[in-house]
Amino acid sequence: MRRLVILAEGRFSVHGAKTAIGVLRFSPDQTVAILDSTRAGQDAASALGLADVGAGVPVVATVAEALAFHPTDLLIGIAPIGGQLPDAWRPTLLQAMEAGLNLISGLHVFLDDDPELHAAAEAHHVTIWDVRRPQPDYAMRIGRGLPHRQGSRTVYFAGSDCNVGKMTGALALDREARGRGWDSVFAATGQTGIMISGVGVPADRVISDFVNGAVEKLVLDLTEQHQWVFVEGQGTLCHPAYSAVTLGLLHGARPDAQILCHEAGRTHINEYPDYPLPSLRGLITVYETAAGWLHPAPVVGVALNTVNLSEDEARAAVEAAAQETGLPATDPVRFGSAALLDALERFFHGR
Amino acid sequence: MRRLVILAEGRFSVHGAKTAIGVLRFSPDQTVAILDSTRAGQDAASALGLADVGAGVPVVATVAEALAFHPTDLLIGIAPIGGQLPDAWRPTLLQAMEAGLNLISGLHVFLDDDPELHAAAEAHHVTIWDVRRPQPDYAMRIGRGLPHRQGSRTVYFAGSDCNVGKMTGALALDREARGRGWDSVFAATGQTGIMISGVGVPADRVISDFVNGAVEKLVLDLTEQHQWVFVEGQGTLCHPAYSAVTLGLLHGARPDAQILCHEAGRTHINEYPDYPLPSLRGLITVYETAAGWLHPAPVVGVALNTVNLSEDEARAAVEAAAQETGLPATDPVRFGSAALLDALERFFHGR
Repeated sequence: MRRLVILAEGRFSVHGAKTAIGVLRFSPDQTVAILDSTRAGQDAASALGLADVGAGVPVVATVAEALAFHPTDLLIGIAPIGGQLPDAWRPTLLQAMEAGLNLISGLHVFLDDDPELHAAAEAHHVTIWDVRRPQPDYAMRIGRGLPHRQGSRTVYFAGSDCNVGKMTGALALDREARGRGWDSVFAATGQTGIMISGVGVPADRVISDFVNGAVEKLVLDLTEQHQWVFVEGQGTLCHPAYSAVTLGLLHGARPDAQILCHEAGRTHINEYPDYPLPSLRGLITVYETAAGWLHPAPVVGVALNTVNLSEDEARAAVEAAAQETGLPATDPVRFGSAALLDALERFFHGR
Repeated sequence: MRRLVILAEGRFSVHGAKTAIGVLRFSPDQTVAILDSTRAGQDAASALGLADVGAGVPVVATVAEALAFHPTDLLIGIAPIGGQLPDAWRPTLLQAMEAGLNLISGLHVFLDDDPELHAAAEAHHVTIWDVRRPQPDYAMRIGRGLPHRQGSRTVYFAGSDCNVGKMTGALALDREARGRGWDSVFAATGQTGIMISGVGVPADRVISDFVNGAVEKLVLDLTEQHQWVFVEGQGTLCHPAYSAVTLGLLHGARPDAQILCHEAGRTHINEYPDYPLPSLRGLITVYETAAGWLHPAPVVGVALNTVNLSEDEARAAVEAAAQETGLPATDPVRFGSAALLDALERFFHGR
């Protein structure tokens, strides 16, 4: 069991620290401290303003302070745009390795390929896990469009945008499904999901020719071993930068059904103000159309992220989403996943 | 000006040697010999069964024979599935370098990263051009969804499948457009196109997160310099393996109009017998829908590859495609591009 310090310098907030929050919420590893000098002195829950994430986990200002909590690994918990290593982080990483901590990074740039960091890891006998480096099995596999094991059920978590709750929705449904005794598994397709589950395909880091094939292998292998496979989606089909990743993932996963994930109140692609989001009904058409080019996958429910809303507003937003789409809707984190699991069970029961 | 030997061992045929044929037909470099021991002794035109490609270019069995024609470069003109270097080619490549030839390769695996080949290149003072290695400007650029220069006209060549004539169609229209005095340019997005034009983005080799952004930069730069930009498409949106590449390219190119490219008589995705192609009308809907998620781009004509048909059959196939789609159709190689250039001119005239 790892004991993690999560680096989230200057960004440990609900919208800035997606990886940190995912790890705090779902990882089997224990987080012993958060590194953010701008929020030091609080606990993680109060720094985030979330009751259910990181209660009692201290936010500290330096690696030296974090060492008091006996960490084993430093995990980079924020994602700079483009995935490059900011210069300001380098001394922190070197200090951590000097103190005997392993590094866990989901950056596009591989830390272990950096001569200085690689040498430090060797010198201090620590490891660097570049989570986004595709495994050899996945790196150059051509998609084959193979059908899944009869009786298996693959569900794709389709997003209206980046950072709307696709991974969180898939993890929450997987956890609750296993609580019901279902034979389910989470299929990680991004760096945070892989940090949490230990395996997966970093779809956005795979060479584009092989995205479909890599994801196909991941999902095929999981459908051999499990009845339910909940596949974390990435990006959105309407994204100016990331639509290639999304379509490769959707086609490689070859789902039987989809859950649409959306953040209540988001009207435009984040950081792309010229790109308004389609309506929920429009998004359902987009995803069902694109999946159907290879294999039909109806959207059977809506997972709504209501983190920005009060409890009353959240209930109203969930109700409005259900009304607009005619589908069951919930915020899986806030209100549980039962409505969506029930919808999935009904959908597959008829097949 | 290069003098090329094209390696096409065992595969120098209309359907086996797409790169060789593209280079023979469109490259400003001179091809002095084809290397295919199974067809040695003919000229390239008769080996291919094409009247207009490679007349008088000898097909030879060995590098030693090719040297009689004073080549400067050996270009790999066939594409093994997956892009790996077949073991059988290695001695040929080493012989070529020993004789002072540079290497030009479009494989996924970079020859210059191979220690033996790299050392041989150094020893013999020759260069290795790995065409599929993305240029630094393109390798990690995030898409921004920027509009193009007002008055520029970007046309995407959308395919029903791989190897149906997208590159050939784009090159043929570009050549004929320049013949009309239009200010046009071909935007290469694959290894053969890049070998021909000297620049471009190897879209299928770019990390998936950056496909849209790399192609966007290529096309934005060209629209600054030219009125017409003819963008080579890749794969197809309905492809089990390559749909990620196709959508990233389509969205990155942000075309104003599209030409649908199809090989007459093809009914299924090549090598994927479980995946039938949609009808031409269906394909038009697929491409217009996907482009429209970001920026509308109507399909205004059909480029039909009739290489497998007799002259009469070809005319009938072109007429049938025009009937089915209600759009101008032609085989640009066989019958010229006028119908499609006229259609494009009409389309943009009204805007």
